[in-house]
This record gives sequence, C-alpha cells and structure tokens, in this order.
Amino acid sequence: MAKVLMKGNEVIAEAAVHANCKYFFGYPITPQSELVAYMAKRLPEVGGLFLQAESEIAAINMVYGASSAGVRVMTSSSSPGVSLKQEGISYLVGSELPAVIVNVMRGGPGLGSIQPAQSDYFQATKGGGHGDYHIPVLAPASLQEIVDLMHDAFDIADRYRTPVILMADGMLGQMMEPVEFKEKQHVELPEKDWATTGTRGDGGPKIVNSLRLDPKELEEHNRHLQKKYEKIKEKEVRYEMYLAEDADYIVVAYGTVARIVKNAIHKARKEGIKVGLIRPISLWPYPQKPFDETREKVKAYLTVEMSAGQMVEDVRLAVNGKSPVHFYGRTGGMVPSHEEIYAKIMEMVGGES
Amino acid sequence: MAKVLMKGNEVIAEAAVHANCKYFFGYPITPQSELVAYMAKRLPEVGGLFLQAESEIAAINMVYGASSAGVRVMTSSSSPGVSLKQEGISYLVGSELPAVIVNVMRGGPGLGSIQPAQSDYFQATKGGGHGDYHIPVLAPASLQEIVDLMHDAFDIADRYRTPVILMADGMLGQMMEPVEFKEKQHVELPEKDWATTGTRGDGGPKIVNSLRLDPKELEEHNRHLQKKYEKIKEKEVRYEMYLAEDADYIVVAYGTVARIVKNAIHKARKEGIKVGLIRPISLWPYPQKPFDETREKVKAYLTVEMSAGQMVEDVRLAVNGKSPVHFYGRTGGMVPSHEEIYAKIMEMVGGES
Amino acid sequence: MAKVLMKGNEVIAEAAVHANCKYFFGYPITPQSELVAYMAKRLPEVGGLFLQAESEIAAINMVYGASSAGVRVMTSSSSPGVSLKQEGISYLVGSELPAVIVNVMRGGPGLGSIQPAQSDYFQATKGGGHGDYHIPVLAPASLQEIVDLMHDAFDIADRYRTPVILMADGMLGQMMEPVEFKEKQHVELPEKDWATTGTRGDGGPKIVNSLRLDPKELEEHNRHLQKKYEKIKEKEVRYEMYLAEDADYIVVAYGTVARIVKNAIHKARKEGIKVGLIRPISLWPYPQKPFDETREKVKAYLTVEMSAGQMVEDVRLAVNGKSPVHFYGRTGGMVPSHEEIYAKIMEMVGGES
Amino acid sequence: MAKVLMKGNEVIAEAAVHANCKYFFGYPITPQSELVAYMAKRLPEVGGLFLQAESEIAAINMVYGASSAGVRVMTSSSSPGVSLKQEGISYLVGSELPAVIVNVMRGGPGLGSIQPAQSDYFQATKGGGHGDYHIPVLAPASLQEIVDLMHDAFDIADRYRTPVILMADGMLGQMMEPVEFKEKQHVELPEKDWATTGTRGDGGPKIVNSLRLDPKELEEHNRHLQKKYEKIKEKEVRYEMYLAEDADYIVVAYGTVARIVKNAIHKARKEGIKVGLIRPISLWPYPQKPFDETREKVKAYLTVEMSAGQMVEDVRLAVNGKSPVHFYGRTGGMVPSHEEIYAKIMEMVGGES
Repeated sequence: MAKVLMKGNEVIAEAAVHANCKYFFGYPITPQSELVAYMAKRLPEVGGLFLQAESEIAAINMVYGASSAGVRVMTSSSSPGVSLKQEGISYLVGSELPAVIVNVMRGGPGLGSIQPAQSDYFQATKGGGHGDYHIPVLAPASLQEIVDLMHDAFDIADRYRTPVILMADGMLGQMMEPVEFKEKQHVELPEKDWATTGTRGDGGPKIVNSLRLDPKELEEHNRHLQKKYEKIKEKEVRYEMYLAEDADYIVVAYGTVARIVKNAIHKARKEGIKVGLIRPISLWPYPQKPFDETREKVKAYLTVEMSAGQMVEDVRLAVNGKSPVHFYGRTGGMVPSHEEIYAKIMEMVGGES
Repeated sequence: MAKVLMKGNEVIAEAAVHANCKYFFGYPITPQSELVAYMAKRLPEVGGLFLQAESEIAAINMVYGASSAGVRVMTSSSSPGVSLKQEGISYLVGSELPAVIVNVMRGGPGLGSIQPAQSDYFQATKGGGHGDYHIPVLAPASLQEIVDLMHDAFDIADRYRTPVILMADGMLGQMMEPVEFKEKQHVELPEKDWATTGTRGDGGPKIVNSLRLDPKELEEHNRHLQKKYEKIKEKEVRYEMYLAEDADYIVVAYGTVARIVKNAIHKARKEGIKVGLIRPISLWPYPQKPFDETREKVKAYLTVEMSAGQMVEDVRLAVNGKSPVHFYGRTGGMVPSHEEIYAKIMEMVGGES
Repeated sequence: MAKVLMKGNEVIAEAAVHANCKYFFGYPITPQSELVAYMAKRLPEVGGLFLQAESEIAAINMVYGASSAGVRVMTSSSSPGVSLKQEGISYLVGSELPAVIVNVMRGGPGLGSIQPAQSDYFQATKGGGHGDYHIPVLAPASLQEIVDLMHDAFDIADRYRTPVILMADGMLGQMMEPVEFKEKQHVELPEKDWATTGTRGDGGPKIVNSLRLDPKELEEHNRHLQKKYEKIKEKEVRYEMYLAEDADYIVVAYGTVARIVKNAIHKARKEGIKVGLIRPISLWPYPQKPFDETREKVKAYLTVEMSAGQMVEDVRLAVNGKSPVHFYGRTGGMVPSHEEIYAKIMEMVGGES
Repeated sequence: MAKVLMKGNEVIAEAAVHANCKYFFGYPITPQSELVAYMAKRLPEVGGLFLQAESEIAAINMVYGASSAGVRVMTSSSSPGVSLKQEGISYLVGSELPAVIVNVMRGGPGLGSIQPAQSDYFQATKGGGHGDYHIPVLAPASLQEIVDLMHDAFDIADRYRTPVILMADGMLGQMMEPVEFKEKQHVELPEKDWATTGTRGDGGPKIVNSLRLDPKELEEHNRHLQKKYEKIKEKEVRYEMYLAEDADYIVVAYGTVARIVKNAIHKARKEGIKVGLIRPISLWPYPQKPFDETREKVKAYLTVEMSAGQMVEDVRLAVNGKSPVHFYGRTGGMVPSHEEIYAKIMEMVGGES
C-alpha cells in the first residue's frame, strides 16, 4: 500500500480500524476532535459502530459493555476528558477487559489550554484511578509509529485482558506526515472464551464483574493482576536508544519531544559533546534495561518533558542514585525548542564536568 | 472539653465542623456513609448546609461552586467515588480553590471490596487528574489525630488556595476511640479577596476559572503553582519518627498500618533487633528529612502498605539507592497482622545482616 | 407464515422488526422490559442496532440522532420513563423527525404500581411536552392488531415526518396470543431527502433543528405543523364500531378494556338491551365520525377507562352536549371486570330511560 | 409598603420570598433567567438557600427532597425545561408534596423561540406527566397579580399537599410595572406532621413515597387524590368577569392576552357591540360558573390564545354545545394585537348575527 499524507488524529483512527477495531465510543474535545469525526464516518464503512456518548463517563462505560461482548473497542479524549474516565478505567482493569484508550494530551491542570502537553504521565502510568493496577502505556513519536503501535496496543490488550493507553499529544494529533498502512500480520491471541455473548447451552452464564466482596478473593485477584504485570514487564517493554553507545550524557524524552531532542543532540555532537538519547516507547512498563546499561558510565542524565517533571521520577527510580538526573520542562502548551534543549545539555555538561 | 467515644467517620465529620466547615456535598458509599449521614444532621445545626448530590461528579462541582464563594467546604467518598472526582479536583487546582476531600479507602480496583485498603496512594499523591499539580495529602493514624489534622487540612487549603486530601481507610472510618475536640486556635490566614461574592462597587468582577487559552499565560500559571508547591514542601511536611534514633532497620508505614507496625517493632526490640519507624503524616509533600537522617546508617528499610506497592516508590526516591528498600503489602481489604510484619522484619534482618 | 404464540412485549418488538425498524434505544422498566431484552437479541440478527442508554433521556435523544440520519428507529418505556422523554418528544416534533414511541402503561402517578393502566391518555393525546403539537397515537386491543398497527405507525411517522405513539398497557404487554407476521405490503413513502447523511457534493449541508429564534419563522413553522395535523385528521383516523348500528346506548373504550366491554355488551344484549361499542384505535386524531353518526339517536354514552377519566373529555367534545356522557373508571393497576361494566351499563339504562 | 418598579421575573421571585419560600432549585433558561439570578442573591439574605442544579431534572428532584422536609420550595423554568420536569412533577403528586413550579412560557415546540407563548396550557392543565392527576394552575395577568397569587399558590400547595403551577409568559416575565408587596395575611394551614424531619422518639419513621405496588392500595390512593381534586374544584376556582353582564359576545382569554383583549373590547363597545370578557385565573380547576351563567344567553364565544388552540377545548367543554365557540390564536412568540382581536370580534359578530 502506498504512503498517504494524513493528519495525526486521523492516523490514530485509521490505524485502529486497521487493527480491526470495530467500535468507538467517545465525546469530542480539542485537540482530538478529528479522531472522533473520522471514526463517525469510517466505522460504518467497515461494519462497525461509532457512537457519540452523552459524556466521557457514558463513553468509557459503553467501552466496558462492548469489551465484555468480546469485540475490539476504543475510546479517545484529551486530558480533562480522560480524568472523567478514571473510575471506568479502574473498572476495566478490575474486570480484566481489553480496550484501547487514547489521550491526546493538552495543557492543564483544569480546563487549561488546547495546546500540546505531556502532563498526564503520572495519571497514565501510576494509575489515575483507584486500586492497585498498571496499564500498558504506549507513546509514539511519529505518525508512522502510531500505525505500528496501534496493532501492538490492541494485541497487548487482548493478550493480557487489560486496557492499554496510547499517549499522544496535541502536536502529534495535529501534525501531517505520510504514513503507510501495512496489512496486519497474524498474531496468535487467546480466544475470548470469557466474553458474555450468550451461553447457547454450552455451559453456565459468563459474568464480567469487578466486585469481589470477600477480601480474600479480592486479594487473590490482585495477586493474579500483579503476576500479569510481571509478565508484561518481561515481554512488553519498548524503547529506542539513539547515539547512546558512546555517550557521556544521555537525554531522556518520549513522544514528539524526543524528536526535538534529536536535533539538539546533533548540534551537541557537532560541538564534540557525546550526547545520546533514551526514548521510552512503553511508559509503563518503564524500560529499566537502557538505564542499567548506561547508569554506571554516563556522567549525567537530562530528562526533558512537556510537564513540570513527571517521567523524571521514573528516570530517578531507574538510575537509583548511580548518576545525577537533571530536568528541563515546559508546560501549559509551550513546546521546548531544540535551542533550549541544547542550552540545557550544555548547562549539564558544564555542571557535571 | 471532655473526651467522647465516637466512630471514625463521625469524627472526620465533627472535626470538619470544628474546623468551621459549613458546607458538605457528597454521595454515600461504603465504608464512609456514616460521614455523609452525620453531616446531613449536623451541618444545619451550625447554620451550614449539607446536600446529597446526584453523583460524585455533581458533588465535586458543587464544592467548586461553594469554594469560589469563599466558604469552607468538604466532600468525601471512598475509592471509586474519588476516581469520579478526578476531573473536578484538577479544576479546583487549576482555579486555586481551597477544599478538603476525604477518601476513606476501600479495596480495589473497580468495585472491589468494601474492606480497608491503602491502594489510592498514587492517585492522591501523584495526581489522579490531568495536568501538573500536587495536592497536600494528610494521613492520620488515630481518631484523635484526625481531629488535629482536620484543622491543618482546612488551614493549608486556605493558606495556599489548594484542595487538600485527607486519606483514611475503612479501618479508621469504622473504628471507635475516645477523642477530644479542643477549641480551634486562631491561625492567621490570608483574606479571601478573590472570592466571587459580588463586587458591590469595590472593583471589577472577580473571576474563578481554570481556562487559560494562551499557553504563555498557562505556563506562567503553572510556574506560580510550582512555586507554591516549593513553599508547601518547605513548610507543611509532617511525619513521626519512632524508635528510629538507634535503629539498624526502619519500617516505613502510614495510617492505621503504622499502628500495627509499632506492635511488630516492640516484639522485634524484645528480641534485641533495633527497629524503628518512619511514619509519613503528609504523604505529599513526602518527608525527605527522616530519610536523609537515616539512609546512610541503617541496613535496610521495609515499607509496609495495604497495597501492592505504591508508597514504596517514594521511599526509593527518598533513599535514592543509599540502602536496600524492601516491601510487604496486603491488598483487597486484607489487613497485615503484626505477626506477619514481624516475620517480614526478621526476614529483612536475615537477608541484610 | 404460520401463527406463533408470543408474549405481547415481544410481539411489539418483532412487529417493529417486520416494519423494518433497525434501531432501538431504551432503558428497561417494568412492565415492558421483555421488549427491550428482545430487541437486544433480535436487532443484531437483522443488521440493526440495539443500545441500552444510560437513561430514558439519553434514549430519546439517541432516537433524535438516528432519525435525523433517516433510519427507522423506536424507543419504548412505561409511564414514568415516558414522562422523562417529554422534552425529547417535543424536539422530535419541532424538528419533524419520524420515530415510534411505545408506552406500555402502568399505574400512576409517580412510581405508582407495575400493573396495567390507561392513565397516560392525556399525556399522549394532548401533548405532555411543551408547545403546540399533536402526535398520532395508536391503541391496539390485541396482539395481532399490534402487528398490523406497527406497520401503520412507522408509515405514518415517515409519511408525515412525525413521532407516533403506540399505546399499550401492562395487560397487553404481558398476555400471550397467537399472531401472524405477514409480509409488509409495499407502501409508497416520500424519500427522506432531508436526512443528514452527508452532502457528497449534491447541495448544501442538511440541518435538522427545532430552534427558530425569529418568531415569524416559528409561527410559519407552526402553521405548517397545523396543516399537517389537518391532513392527518383527514386520512389517519382509525376506529371500530361494534353492534352500534341499532344501539340505544354506546360504550366507548379502547385497548384491552374494549375487549372486556364486548363481554359486557353480549350480556346486556342477551337481556334485550341494545348496547354497542365505539372503539377508537387512533386516540389522536380522535374519531369524530362515529359520534356524529350516533349522537343524535342514542340515549347515552358510557366511557370506560383504566383511569380516573381522561378520554371521556374527548368523548364529551365529540358528543358536544347532544347526549349524556357517563364515565366508569378503575385506576392504579385495577382492571374493570365485565360484570362491573355490565352493572354500569344497566345503571345508565336505568338512569336515562 | 410603597410601590416599587420591578421586572416581572424579579416580582415572581420576590413574591415567593414574601410568601416565605426559603428554597429554590433551578437551572437558567431564557426568558426566566432573571428569576434564577434574583433568587441566587436574595434567598441567602433571608436565611434561605438557592442552588443551581446541574439540570432541570436534578432541580425538580431537589424540590422533592426539600418539600419532603416540610419547607416552602419553588423551582422555575421555561417550556423545554418544564417538559424535563414532568416525571418529577408526577412524583410530587404521587407523594403529595407541596411545591410551586413557575413556567415562563416561550414559543415551541422543541427549542422553539425565546419569545412569549401560551402553548404549554395542555401540559399544565391536563397533566404532562403520567398517571391520573391534576395540578392547580394560576395564571396572573399583571405583576401586582403575581404578588397576590403567589401567596395563594403556596397556601394551596400546603393546604392540599400538591404542587401548584404558576403560568406566566415571556411578556409577563420581561415587562416592568410598579408593584406593592403587602404583608402576608395569616392563613390557617394544616401542620406538616408528615414531613420527614426525624422522629426524635415521637413515633415511627415518616415515609414520603409514590410507590404503591399493591394496585388496591394505589387505587385507594387515587380515590383520595380525586376527592382532593373535588375539594379544590369547589374552593379554589378563580376568574375575572369584565363587562360580561349585558354581553352578547364573550371573549375568553388568560394572562397578558386578556389585557390586550380588554383594549379590543373597549373599541368594540365604542362601536355599540356588547362584548365582555371571561378571564380564567385558575386554569385548573377551570371556571365553569361564568360559562353556566352566560352560555344560554350569549350569541357566541371567542377564545384568544397565544397557541394553536388549547384552552379552547376547556371552553368547549364548559359551553357544552350551548353556543358557538370560535378561536383565534398566534404562535411561536407572536403576540396578537388589539386590532387583530377587534377584527376577530367583528368577524364573529358578522357570522353569528
């Protein structure tokens, strides 16, 4: 299939359709409204269903219902709308229901702005909802990567019976790039024998529920979830290392920010400073390995985020005191330029040399 | 005033009344429903207002409205209900509105159980809502401490114009203990000149809002919030150290779990093992100082939580690789016994000696 | 097609499917829940869509959306649920959208009982919503008649671009009778060129709306609606006359009550009393003709309803003082027996002779 | 107290305060928003409570709650908002709860216009909700009459334990006139011993409910309601007769339209045509007496409404074929001028002479 020039929000939608997502429930919010509009038009063409719910809460609960019936289903929103979904997300986790949730992040807190941000990292990775759980979080940095990761997102969701979050930001949602939709490769996935599609005489009724009033039973369920998370940590870590092998300094960044960081690294390399990049693609499970491989030898890390400092905590946990960890962030919809980042790299070099 | 024997949920309510809280908006959920019922009866007696909202979302938005008008206001819920409030909490933060939010935690995720838990630590301390923010979180361990901390909760809320979370758990909510309500000491607090109580010709209209469409303005606002958080970190850290001075091993625990840990420590001390306790009372800002004072000299830390491991991340960040950090947790409403904790202490001692 | 034995609520559902209804939005309420359950299972089999909305208000607004897109759509409820739909029904009228609304009436007011009643006659025929409008209301008396009238209901809806109400009662919903689903005869209906299915370059955007801020325009629209109502009054009146030709006394009743009345009439005829029946099938437009034909010659009318007296007003308007009009009603879920009705007939005969 | 110049919506609000209404729950909608705004400011001044609910449905259910507690409570809206309240109104009736509901009517159906109308007459008088019930409906024609009728509205509500509707229209809500608030005369009213204000050991719990699952019990309750309605019909009929004694022709009109009709009558009288006015003030119970007194002697009636013809049905029922009944109406926010009405009078005179 040839490359087509598309807008990020539409790529997310079309990638989901290519991943065989047939159901979408959502509510429009800038800067991801094109995604909703695209799905409204596209899903009926593939025999699927789009429904604009009366609120974000209605939408996430419709996702719960559709997923219970064993179909591939997605919802999307932007920051405030994703906050409204937190109870529903915890219910999906408690009932072990696969689903893909897209957050095209905008500046916060509150209504904030409609410009790009990365300030929902904590919410996505630590659990914005209640109870002990983790959600696999995938953070693409380009439109082509969205296409590839969307397949993974749905496969991970189905394989582990878990919601998966795809974290984008307003920049990624609004930009245009050529993308290629390749045919989905066949992936072996467990049968959804738990889906509540009726019994037809083949056994008792199937029940999808997150209520476990007996605390022993709930603890058992939580142990089962934690074991699942161990397996995901083992199998589903994704990251990119870039010019990191010989690096004295490493910048850590994800999503579109990582692309800007690369420009700053190129400039620093021209000046003879050996700087590399660790780009986590899975934000949870967080990639420990690239830090294990580098933390004894680099002089310092610099985390760059469009936030006041959230992922930097995971960097500190991964580095565990073995090397200094610096931070540079912009917030509220402000995007750091490569000049700014370059300046911060040079500051780190000056400070740590 | 003499001591009275009361149930935890009622103590939370009465303490709020003593802290001059006049407005309460909420929705019943086990195990905090007595709190709601108590407020329904009590607030009218002091000229206040109780309103059972039609949902948790309605409740948190009524809190927004009442706080905008400059009054002391509280809401409370238990885990799933608090997840529903995450958007509203982020709005309170974005608009810098004081309020006290009580979470009497129960087992999760999802509907979970109605037994006690501590598994909403991440949600409370890292920000379950969207955007860059922190909320002061206070975690009492006894009913008397609730009374004392509730004054602080409202004072911190008013002083810094921020929501404050009081974290309890089902055990604390349901237990009975004698408490004494002392008269509130006078505390100097800034006037609420921002409250939207009408202009009456003394200047232009006052606006309470979290929308800042210009990203420069929103970033400026975020800087202002971060500066506020630095001040809170400086002034509002609360913790207890117990038998920690000479300790070779330190257990870290908060809330009711810390009380059980003390029993385990007593037993270990009897066996000649020097074990102490760090009990964070403010979960955010997290107490760094007791770790700075101990991390170079203790052999290991053991974090005990009614969760699958949440506060342990803050312990690791505070210790920063200077000493091993172990973890023991129960979930789903199961409460660790002092024997279990003692066994875990001995395991740590065996492992690290 | 052979006759099948079915329950009333299921007949309503299957009849809608036979009338090519592909979309159903509703919320369960006794005594019509089997209808909702049947649709949930049945519609996907014919390529349609069933959605249980989060409330009756959500359901009626989804009907608005689906109808705007030009498809055949139905909702159903029982009395309290239909009250919740009144705003939405007025919006359907204002926007001239076809839809079928089923009310399986139960005893009221308020939550009332779950037993059969006819006490929503005023709401259906006079307009429970705001503004000047009428809705064609069809009231079957048997399960076979439901099958036949359902075709009419959808055809009338489409032909005149109006919501249509099918009035049943709990008795009709719960009873079982053999029914035959004949193939729908082809009926010429206007093309839905107003449906908002996208422009695809063939003209400007289509707008479905009930807001007309210019009062002149709104009055013009109301005149258009009134003209439509005149046409419906001319073409869509339905009623049954039974033993009315030689009658000295006429009983007026609709729905299942009319069936019981027939038994009472047989008994009276055996006693030599010439009693007949007027059974309105369309409750709006109300059948004037059978009254014009009889009001100068009969001695009296008796209206029998499962209500405190609602249709009796339309009987009085139709008779216009030309003959006495008596009333007998039962309420709250109580069904009048044929003995009671016979006794009332004899009372009328005694009084008017 | 001296006369003050006020806007109609504010007069409604202030009159309610004078009638000792302390609670108001509502949601803004043009053309009655000033009423809501006024209450927001005014009620706290008298120790009352204003709450803007999250929807009209929330508002009417808060009215249910407040009324259950025995206080005087009001809600208000305009046409579409009143449709949303229909289920709640039926619940108030079923539970016999006093409350005052204001409808400042605007043009419909659907969103319609924001100009004045009288097209919710059927909804108010015949029962927009489900079940057998009637609601006393008062229709003032001037701002001073609002003040007087508001006392009656609350007294009737309390005396008969029923919701009462005050019907205004956009014209009345927006006009300014001088009004005088006289001190409320003492009226003997039954004690609210049914109010759920707690038992304090003086008997069993009080229950306010509209659910009566036993149909016999529900029918008994309905008989009780009907007896109440008979009493209201006997005691609470209100109307004005104007130049009707010697009239050959009578115009029937209510609210602001009746004021315009008077001008037309003056003009007709100058031409020697003996025309009078019947102005129903209580729309339910509908005044039968002025029709009984006139229907045998006048040549014809003319009903004038800002609707497509709603009250005219009650006029026909009251006249019962004894005299011709004509109709003239404007809709959609169009107000009939006195010239138009004069022309209609002359047309009637020409036709019936």
